[in-house]
Amino acid sequence: MKAIVHVTLKNGVLDPQGKAIEHALGSLGFKGVGEVRQGKVIELEINAADRAGAREQVEQMCQRLLANTVIENFTIDIEE
Amino acid sequence: MKAIVHVTLKNGVLDPQGKAIEHALGSLGFKGVGEVRQGKVIELEINAADRAGAREQVEQMCQRLLANTVIENFTIDIEE
Repeated sequence: MKAIVHVTLKNGVLDPQGKAIEHALGSLGFKGVGEVRQGKVIELEINAADRAGAREQVEQMCQRLLANTVIENFTIDIEE
Repeated sequence: MKAIVHVTLKNGVLDPQGKAIEHALGSLGFKGVGEVRQGKVIELEINAADRAGAREQVEQMCQRLLANTVIENFTIDIEE
Protein backbone atom coordinates (compact mmCIF):
# COMPACT_ATOMS: atom_id res chain seq x y z
CA MET A 1 0.00 0.00 0.00
CA LYS A 2 1.22 3.51 -0.71
CA ALA A 3 0.86 6.39 1.74
CA ILE A 4 1.30 10.00 0.69
CA VAL A 5 1.93 12.47 3.51
CA HIS A 6 1.75 16.23 3.03
CA VAL A 7 3.50 18.31 5.69
CA THR A 8 2.80 22.05 5.55
CA LEU A 9 3.58 24.92 7.89
CA LYS A 10 0.65 26.11 9.99
CA ASN A 11 -0.92 29.45 9.13
CA GLY A 12 0.96 32.29 10.75
CA VAL A 13 4.27 30.44 10.87
CA LEU A 14 6.92 32.29 8.88
CA ASP A 15 7.99 30.47 5.73
CA PRO A 16 11.37 31.81 4.55
CA GLN A 17 11.62 29.26 1.73
CA GLY A 18 8.24 30.36 0.41
CA LYS A 19 9.27 34.01 0.65
CA ALA A 20 12.51 33.27 -1.22
CA ILE A 21 10.56 31.61 -4.03
CA GLU A 22 8.14 34.56 -4.13
CA HIS A 23 11.00 37.05 -4.54
CA ALA A 24 12.81 34.89 -7.08
CA LEU A 25 9.65 34.60 -9.22
CA GLY A 26 9.30 38.39 -9.07
CA SER A 27 12.93 38.82 -10.16
CA LEU A 28 12.32 36.49 -13.10
CA GLY A 29 9.50 38.75 -14.26
CA PHE A 30 6.45 36.72 -13.20
CA LYS A 31 3.62 39.09 -12.33
CA GLY A 32 0.61 38.54 -10.11
CA VAL A 33 2.17 36.03 -7.77
CA GLY A 34 0.71 36.29 -4.27
CA GLU A 35 1.71 34.32 -1.23
CA VAL A 36 3.93 31.28 -1.75
CA ARG A 37 4.24 28.50 0.83
CA GLN A 38 6.51 25.51 0.61
CA GLY A 39 5.90 22.16 2.25
CA LYS A 40 7.07 18.57 2.03
CA VAL A 41 5.51 15.51 0.49
CA ILE A 42 6.63 12.07 1.65
CA GLU A 43 5.67 8.87 -0.19
CA LEU A 44 5.96 5.62 1.74
CA GLU A 45 5.45 1.99 0.78
CA ILE A 46 3.65 0.37 3.71
CA ASN A 47 2.90 -3.27 4.49
CA ALA A 48 -0.46 -3.22 6.23
CA ALA A 49 -3.50 -5.50 6.27
CA ASP A 50 -6.00 -2.77 5.43
CA ARG A 51 -6.29 0.94 4.78
CA ALA A 52 -7.38 1.77 8.33
CA GLY A 53 -4.33 -0.03 9.73
CA ALA A 54 -2.05 1.73 7.28
CA ARG A 55 -3.50 5.14 8.12
CA GLU A 56 -3.09 4.54 11.85
CA GLN A 57 0.53 3.48 11.39
CA VAL A 58 1.35 6.50 9.21
CA GLU A 59 -0.38 8.84 11.66
CA GLN A 60 1.97 7.51 14.35
CA MET A 61 4.95 8.10 12.05
CA CYS A 62 3.84 11.69 11.47
CA GLN A 63 3.43 12.34 15.18
CA ARG A 64 6.79 10.83 16.06
CA LEU A 65 9.04 11.71 13.14
CA LEU A 66 7.67 13.17 9.92
CA ALA A 67 6.03 16.36 11.17
CA ASN A 68 6.80 18.88 13.87
CA THR A 69 3.23 19.27 15.12
CA VAL A 70 4.06 22.47 16.99
CA ILE A 71 4.44 24.36 13.72
CA GLU A 72 3.32 21.93 11.01
CA ASN A 73 0.09 20.30 9.85
CA PHE A 74 -0.01 16.98 8.07
CA THR A 75 -2.49 15.14 5.88
CA ILE A 76 -2.39 11.47 4.93
CA ASP A 77 -3.68 9.82 1.74
CA ILE A 78 -3.64 6.07 1.41
CA GLU A 79 -3.59 4.49 -2.05
CA GLU A 80 -3.76 0.81 -2.96
CA MET B 1 -6.50 31.24 -7.99
CA LYS B 2 -4.39 28.72 -6.11
CA ALA B 3 -1.80 26.52 -7.76
CA ILE B 4 -0.34 23.47 -6.05
CA VAL B 5 2.91 22.17 -7.51
CA HIS B 6 4.38 18.80 -6.57
CA VAL B 7 8.06 18.33 -7.31
CA THR B 8 9.39 14.78 -6.95
CA LEU B 9 12.66 13.13 -7.86
CA LYS B 10 12.58 11.03 -11.02
CA ASN B 11 12.71 7.27 -10.68
CA GLY B 12 16.27 6.05 -10.40
CA VAL B 13 17.58 9.28 -8.87
CA LEU B 14 19.04 8.64 -5.42
CA ASP B 15 16.99 10.19 -2.60
CA PRO B 16 19.16 10.50 0.53
CA GLN B 17 16.42 12.30 2.48
CA GLY B 18 14.01 9.47 1.75
CA LYS B 19 16.62 6.90 2.79
CA ALA B 20 17.26 8.81 6.04
CA ILE B 21 13.54 8.77 6.84
CA GLU B 22 13.38 5.05 6.02
CA HIS B 23 16.22 4.27 8.44
CA ALA B 24 14.84 6.56 11.15
CA LEU B 25 11.42 4.88 10.94
CA GLY B 26 13.14 1.51 11.28
CA SER B 27 15.06 2.73 14.34
CA LEU B 28 11.81 3.91 15.91
CA GLY B 29 10.43 0.39 15.59
CA PHE B 30 8.08 0.81 12.62
CA LYS B 31 7.92 -2.48 10.68
CA GLY B 32 6.97 -3.08 7.09
CA VAL B 33 8.11 0.23 5.69
CA GLY B 34 9.32 -0.11 2.10
CA GLU B 35 10.77 2.59 -0.08
CA VAL B 36 10.41 6.18 1.12
CA ARG B 37 10.74 9.17 -1.26
CA GLN B 38 10.61 12.80 -0.26
CA GLY B 39 9.52 15.64 -2.50
CA LYS B 40 8.38 19.24 -2.28
CA VAL B 41 4.98 20.81 -2.49
CA ILE B 42 4.68 24.50 -3.35
CA GLU B 43 1.42 26.43 -3.01
CA LEU B 44 1.12 29.69 -4.95
CA GLU B 45 -1.55 32.37 -5.10
CA ILE B 46 -1.80 33.37 -8.77
CA ASN B 47 -3.65 36.24 -10.44
CA ALA B 48 -4.79 34.84 -13.77
CA ALA B 49 -7.84 35.29 -15.96
CA ASP B 50 -8.59 31.58 -16.29
CA ARG B 51 -7.34 28.15 -15.29
CA ALA B 52 -5.57 27.54 -18.60
CA GLY B 53 -3.64 30.80 -18.26
CA ALA B 54 -2.73 30.01 -14.67
CA ARG B 55 -1.52 26.54 -15.60
CA GLU B 56 0.62 27.88 -18.42
CA GLN B 57 2.17 30.50 -16.14
CA VAL B 58 2.92 27.96 -13.40
CA GLU B 59 4.39 25.53 -15.95
CA GLN B 60 6.82 28.30 -16.95
CA MET B 61 7.69 28.86 -13.29
CA CYS B 62 8.41 25.15 -12.85
CA GLN B 63 10.61 25.02 -15.93
CA ARG B 64 12.57 28.12 -14.94
CA LEU B 65 12.75 27.98 -11.14
CA LEU B 66 10.69 25.51 -9.15
CA ALA B 67 11.93 22.20 -10.52
CA ASN B 68 15.24 20.90 -11.79
CA THR B 69 13.85 19.03 -14.77
CA VAL B 70 17.06 17.03 -15.23
CA ILE B 71 16.34 15.03 -12.07
CA GLU B 72 12.84 16.08 -11.01
CA ASN B 73 9.28 15.69 -12.25
CA PHE B 74 6.53 18.15 -11.47
CA THR B 75 2.75 18.12 -11.49
CA ILE B 76 0.46 21.14 -11.32
CA ASP B 77 -3.04 21.35 -9.82
CA ILE B 78 -5.06 24.52 -10.19
CA GLU B 79 -7.81 25.28 -7.67
CA GLU B 80 -10.26 28.19 -7.68
